Amino acid sequence: MPAIFGRPRSLWGNNLMESRVRHVCVVITARASYSRVKTALLAVQASPELRLTIIAGASALLPQYGDAVSVIERDGFKVKYKLGYLIDGTDGAAMAKTTGLGIIELSSVFQREQPDYVVTIADRYETIATAVAASYLNIPLVHIQGGEVTGNIDDKVRNAITKLADVHLVSSEGARQRVIEMGEHPGSIHVTGCPSIDLAATASPHADLSGLYSRYGGTGSCPSLNRDFVVVMQHPVTDEPEGAAWQIGQTLNAVSRVGIPAIVFWPNPDAGSHLVAKAIRQYRERNGSGGIHFFRNLDPKDFLELLLSCKCIVGNSSVGIRECSFMGVPSVNIGTRQAGRDRGPNVIDVPYEVDSIADAIQRQVNIGKYHGVSLYGNGKSGAKVARALESAAFEDLSIATMPRAA
Amino acid sequence: MPAIFGRPRSLWGNNLMESRVRHVCVVITARASYSRVKTALLAVQASPELRLTIIAGASALLPQYGDAVSVIERDGFKVKYKLGYLIDGTDGAAMAKTTGLGIIELSSVFQREQPDYVVTIADRYETIATAVAASYLNIPLVHIQGGEVTGNIDDKVRNAITKLADVHLVSSEGARQRVIEMGEHPGSIHVTGCPSIDLAATASPHADLSGLYSRYGGTGSCPSLNRDFVVVMQHPVTDEPEGAAWQIGQTLNAVSRVGIPAIVFWPNPDAGSHLVAKAIRQYRERNGSGGIHFFRNLDPKDFLELLLSCKCIVGNSSVGIRECSFMGVPSVNIGTRQAGRDRGPNVIDVPYEVDSIADAIQRQVNIGKYHGVSLYGNGKSGAKVARALESAAFEDLSIATMPRAA
Amino acid sequence: MPAIFGRPRSLWGNNLMESRVRHVCVVITARASYSRVKTALLAVQASPELRLTIIAGASALLPQYGDAVSVIERDGFKVKYKLGYLIDGTDGAAMAKTTGLGIIELSSVFQREQPDYVVTIADRYETIATAVAASYLNIPLVHIQGGEVTGNIDDKVRNAITKLADVHLVSSEGARQRVIEMGEHPGSIHVTGCPSIDLAATASPHADLSGLYSRYGGTGSCPSLNRDFVVVMQHPVTDEPEGAAWQIGQTLNAVSRVGIPAIVFWPNPDAGSHLVAKAIRQYRERNGSGGIHFFRNLDPKDFLELLLSCKCIVGNSSVGIRECSFMGVPSVNIGTRQAGRDRGPNVIDVPYEVDSIADAIQRQVNIGKYHGVSLYGNGKSGAKVARALESAAFEDLSIATMPRAA
Amino acid sequence: MPAIFGRPRSLWGNNLMESRVRHVCVVITARASYSRVKTALLAVQASPELRLTIIAGASALLPQYGDAVSVIERDGFKVKYKLGYLIDGTDGAAMAKTTGLGIIELSSVFQREQPDYVVTIADRYETIATAVAASYLNIPLVHIQGGEVTGNIDDKVRNAITKLADVHLVSSEGARQRVIEMGEHPGSIHVTGCPSIDLAATASPHADLSGLYSRYGGTGSCPSLNRDFVVVMQHPVTDEPEGAAWQIGQTLNAVSRVGIPAIVFWPNPDAGSHLVAKAIRQYRERNGSGGIHFFRNLDPKDFLELLLSCKCIVGNSSVGIRECSFMGVPSVNIGTRQAGRDRGPNVIDVPYEVDSIADAIQRQVNIGKYHGVSLYGNGKSGAKVARALESAAFEDLSIATMPRAA
Repeated sequence: MPAIFGRPRSLWGNNLMESRVRHVCVVITARASYSRVKTALLAVQASPELRLTIIAGASALLPQYGDAVSVIERDGFKVKYKLGYLIDGTDGAAMAKTTGLGIIELSSVFQREQPDYVVTIADRYETIATAVAASYLNIPLVHIQGGEVTGNIDDKVRNAITKLADVHLVSSEGARQRVIEMGEHPGSIHVTGCPSIDLAATASPHADLSGLYSRYGGTGSCPSLNRDFVVVMQHPVTDEPEGAAWQIGQTLNAVSRVGIPAIVFWPNPDAGSHLVAKAIRQYRERNGSGGIHFFRNLDPKDFLELLLSCKCIVGNSSVGIRECSFMGVPSVNIGTRQAGRDRGPNVIDVPYEVDSIADAIQRQVNIGKYHGVSLYGNGKSGAKVARALESAAFEDLSIATMPRAA
Repeated sequence: MPAIFGRPRSLWGNNLMESRVRHVCVVITARASYSRVKTALLAVQASPELRLTIIAGASALLPQYGDAVSVIERDGFKVKYKLGYLIDGTDGAAMAKTTGLGIIELSSVFQREQPDYVVTIADRYETIATAVAASYLNIPLVHIQGGEVTGNIDDKVRNAITKLADVHLVSSEGARQRVIEMGEHPGSIHVTGCPSIDLAATASPHADLSGLYSRYGGTGSCPSLNRDFVVVMQHPVTDEPEGAAWQIGQTLNAVSRVGIPAIVFWPNPDAGSHLVAKAIRQYRERNGSGGIHFFRNLDPKDFLELLLSCKCIVGNSSVGIRECSFMGVPSVNIGTRQAGRDRGPNVIDVPYEVDSIADAIQRQVNIGKYHGVSLYGNGKSGAKVARALESAAFEDLSIATMPRAA
Repeated sequence: MPAIFGRPRSLWGNNLMESRVRHVCVVITARASYSRVKTALLAVQASPELRLTIIAGASALLPQYGDAVSVIERDGFKVKYKLGYLIDGTDGAAMAKTTGLGIIELSSVFQREQPDYVVTIADRYETIATAVAASYLNIPLVHIQGGEVTGNIDDKVRNAITKLADVHLVSSEGARQRVIEMGEHPGSIHVTGCPSIDLAATASPHADLSGLYSRYGGTGSCPSLNRDFVVVMQHPVTDEPEGAAWQIGQTLNAVSRVGIPAIVFWPNPDAGSHLVAKAIRQYRERNGSGGIHFFRNLDPKDFLELLLSCKCIVGNSSVGIRECSFMGVPSVNIGTRQAGRDRGPNVIDVPYEVDSIADAIQRQVNIGKYHGVSLYGNGKSGAKVARALESAAFEDLSIATMPRAA
Repeated sequence: MPAIFGRPRSLWGNNLMESRVRHVCVVITARASYSRVKTALLAVQASPELRLTIIAGASALLPQYGDAVSVIERDGFKVKYKLGYLIDGTDGAAMAKTTGLGIIELSSVFQREQPDYVVTIADRYETIATAVAASYLNIPLVHIQGGEVTGNIDDKVRNAITKLADVHLVSSEGARQRVIEMGEHPGSIHVTGCPSIDLAATASPHADLSGLYSRYGGTGSCPSLNRDFVVVMQHPVTDEPEGAAWQIGQTLNAVSRVGIPAIVFWPNPDAGSHLVAKAIRQYRERNGSGGIHFFRNLDPKDFLELLLSCKCIVGNSSVGIRECSFMGVPSVNIGTRQAGRDRGPNVIDVPYEVDSIADAIQRQVNIGKYHGVSLYGNGKSGAKVARALESAAFEDLSIATMPRAA
């Protein structure tokens, strides 16, 4: 069928082929998402061909989730829009309504800003709001970190965004392959690697951990951090909220059994996060805080330096798979949350079970640092993202969404 | 990676394997969507293994878009929830905000109803609201009419819903193939055909067209309908709203040139629909209504009977491709809106150009009726949908969303 | 109780006592509201002590309700935010949800703009959204046209806004008295008159009515406008939606009986407006358009000039009471919608009854022009509004909301 | 003007004069609101002339704010709708958006339920959502606790609701007077007293405070509660959020200076509440928890029994003015939050100042129990509310909203 199709393009009649500055809107809705694009934001801001507008929304505005807005502003960026739309609550309805409200707020902003691209990041549930708003406003949608596999509702969200997106900036060759398999045109896919790896590439072990600890609100001294310690970061699995409290309990007991000091982070605001938080509090009340220290959030840089200083990361955060593979930090990955994600030699996978977790931690502590591998980027991903945005052409886009007619 | 994943299932702890009545929520947001599921609703209602709840929202409540709620109720169904959430306006922001508000409203209803399945239909922009709400509430999502190809933003929406859905009830073998190519598990896909064809299978030419005309608010007599006439149904193409007025103008001029009486329908409430409506009004004011009659909406049955009585359908409605292929009604399909959709011998494709359209109409009038083909169903799709819902098993679902890890 | 209270003030730490430019946000949500503040906007824009930001929302963006945004922009103003949030539908739920969505959209904008004042106008249902958003953001709220009396749900809305407002700019001495009686501090009330009267003060009869007619989309010539004619403007009464169709029918029949040409306007988007519109269409289909001409909207200036040219205004619009009292245009006011509103000698009140309406029209046509009276302003209200905003002081505000403790 | 106006009534065409069961929808959005209507709910449920539907929304669903839904259900009520719509955040925009979202959710529910009355309680910011939704749906609105005076934004909200309400059930003669002064018709006002006093009337001192303490999640023993102790309940003042942290600091220091054990409650989710919570945490980290015990929430009954057991309540909660005046519990009321509220002899008012607070506490401890007074009800208010709802007649309502024309 030789039909010529309606080409995706901005509503605003911009001709993207012309040599002119392109306006890029990036929507950040969580602290973790910011880490994943920080170096890309720097590169976009530095490009004479691109103009950057940052929009922060949902949990990115809230102190209890790391106050990403303040972190972004401290890094020297301007946050032009700050949109509070996180519905309080940990059930699925709160997640869905947050998404619905996000679509409403972002539509008004996109319509006002008339960007040439909207950039959305990864697979948190509320990121689909950005994708729907941009798509319906006919603004080309750029998706960072499509094509990954984790094995839960995040997969659905990520893949649905892939089908709405016009340009795909993926982390790895495997991700590129999966985006093609979903029917996207190869010309619309750029393997940029993940900008979060750029931060990992410049990090060095943190010299003053006690200073770090007190800077983030810890009270008293923290002598144990001058010795060996592990980092625990464990999120609820969004389609298994009921088990989340039990799961974190297994981990904390395992750490306690190994007898190594631990820094434990509070979870993201997802379904079940309040159960995880409650379980952490209960553990602390039962066992005291001997050797276990709780951190609410760190700046990305501090966090990476902390990882470089630790013996092992424990839990189900993607950081243990992605950044830590590049940095060679030993990782004990628990359960199914990161299932299917490409991983390096630094990872030991275990189920939610005290014994297995404890054994794996002990094993990793004994092994020590691994050689880093470049599965998810070589440390220059931010610049690659900016180059891709500079070069993405009208034609690419029109091909990218050409239907695969029978 | 042989990991066992969090299986999609209802939050409510129902064990779908047990022999028990399953609660099916069907969300209808437009008159056209109702036609596409009417016989499926009848079959679900008749099944002792299924319990039906109908939710109507957005344009389905509004008189100016055909008052689908009244049509549904006249057919004997109970509409349990009537949710007004269509944002007035024809731009993309109105579409996006309608979707956002729909997610909010539907989340509350799904949480209250706790269904075993949520069913969403086809690819109208606001249907993604149903998909997001159900997915985030962890309720298995059944998608009717995935895997089709049309070549505009509807493709994005339809494919994004496919990636959120757990069960796919598709119209044709070609659609099944495309859903598999997007990475969905074959076991989650059922080729049911399209229930709208069931209606076509029982329709007969309408005996009393003048009666029909006056029943739908036409004034005066309508003698021309006793002679040959064509039906015009042309929607704006959602990513080309600016051209919509010009496009309908080409069609009306072509009809006028052929000199055959025409029944023209008002367009759906999409981006650009008000431009189409305006162009129709302007045409009428310039040319008088000589031979051209305007219908706001018909009940699905009346509409099919009208089609069986006409010489040819003209425009870009899917009806010309789908129902008319089964009924053998000649179709002049204009432009790109149905590009890529499987079609029978009854369709002549033409661009938005007066001459081509007029020629094709004349050609079809001369040819007359075609033999019908079963591309989109054999007239028993409603029952097949009910059977698929009765049989969809827990295991199917868990396989269906298993990630395709490298 | 000599307690010192939390004083209403902007959250942004501005000290209003200092001599500095004050930022005024005016929210316009309907064409009619714009007419009521146009000269105030001009005066605010001209003031070196004030900075103006215009926000347009809801029906102000929609062509079918007069496209106020375009009118505003043609008048040389910049509309900084255009927020589409009108829920389609004519029932109370659509009104309520529009208000809810308006609060959400306006909160984000007010938070971003950090104005010193927010100005809201009159009593349309969605204006309470502006009032709630400003109040909760702790931004001083200025209400134009409080203290009036009309006798329907508009009264509730208007009075609720009065209780949320910090500064009251009222049209008449009677309005001032009623605001005081509701418990507001006299120091917070300024009798500015209504800026809509300013427009009336500069209007002159329209020289070229046929030109006017064709400019607004009328087809064919309009000879009857060169002779005597009346203007009909009749809105549904929001708590009697069922009767709205019958009511407009009475009016149209009365006009027809008098036998004078008429210009009939389509109603506002309120509960029941679609019934009025339908009744108008049915009347036209039954009776032809002989002598009755339908206008969708006029620019305020054209509208006033049209009024000065007509023999009489018929219906229930406030224009017949307010502007027409100043201009001396005869008015036949029907039913309860304007009940309780101060009125001049130009008004004859009648019930919804063909005979009474026809008699009153005939009587007014015989009488001809009245002497104008300054009940609602002397033609300089816009400037008075600007002066009030320049002078409103911190102290005034703190007194204004001091509780009336026992 | 002796016009007869459109009478407020249900849209659903019910004739309220007939002898039939009236359907009453009560919306509860916070734990504290539930306490204020619990006995009224019991009386409505017991009445053969009334049918009760309970709707819970916003913070009433959230564990961190006392999980009112569970409390209500444990008391044997059915909660038919549970609507999560609290926007996370402590600024004014979060409050406003919560209100906007509440209007949207409640409109759909009211439209579905078609009640004869909607009941809203007191003056929390989100209660105006209930009032707007009911008013626009033309459902008679019953307001409990209008006409009070507190001296902050709550006054605005309460008074705006009064102007939207059709029936006023007030706590005291003073409140009745103020509602009349705002222009409401005396026939629409019933002095029922406050149902929260009913609970106070049946409470007795709690026998087992340590049991209470451990039941609510306290760890370790709590020996100090067997001795004298005070209760601290201090909320941020919504238009002075910045000062909230400093204010609670003054109070905690004063309690510490007196040297008496204290039970301190976490604040309501208002603007500034997170600052209060943070200040409480900081105080605890600096001073340890010696003698100061923190409670998140208590069931109303437990809370009243705790009050009867304490030496004095300290802070700015209305409980210290209302319930404690009836129970004769000494109260140290700080700052402006309760300014203007009628008070009994049990209250000593002080500013936010360590010395004054400490002195007042010491004075109250020395004085001991007061004689109770019936300022806010005589302990039978719940029944009076039910009687008022049974008797409220169509005529009353129509008079109640008759405009006060000049």
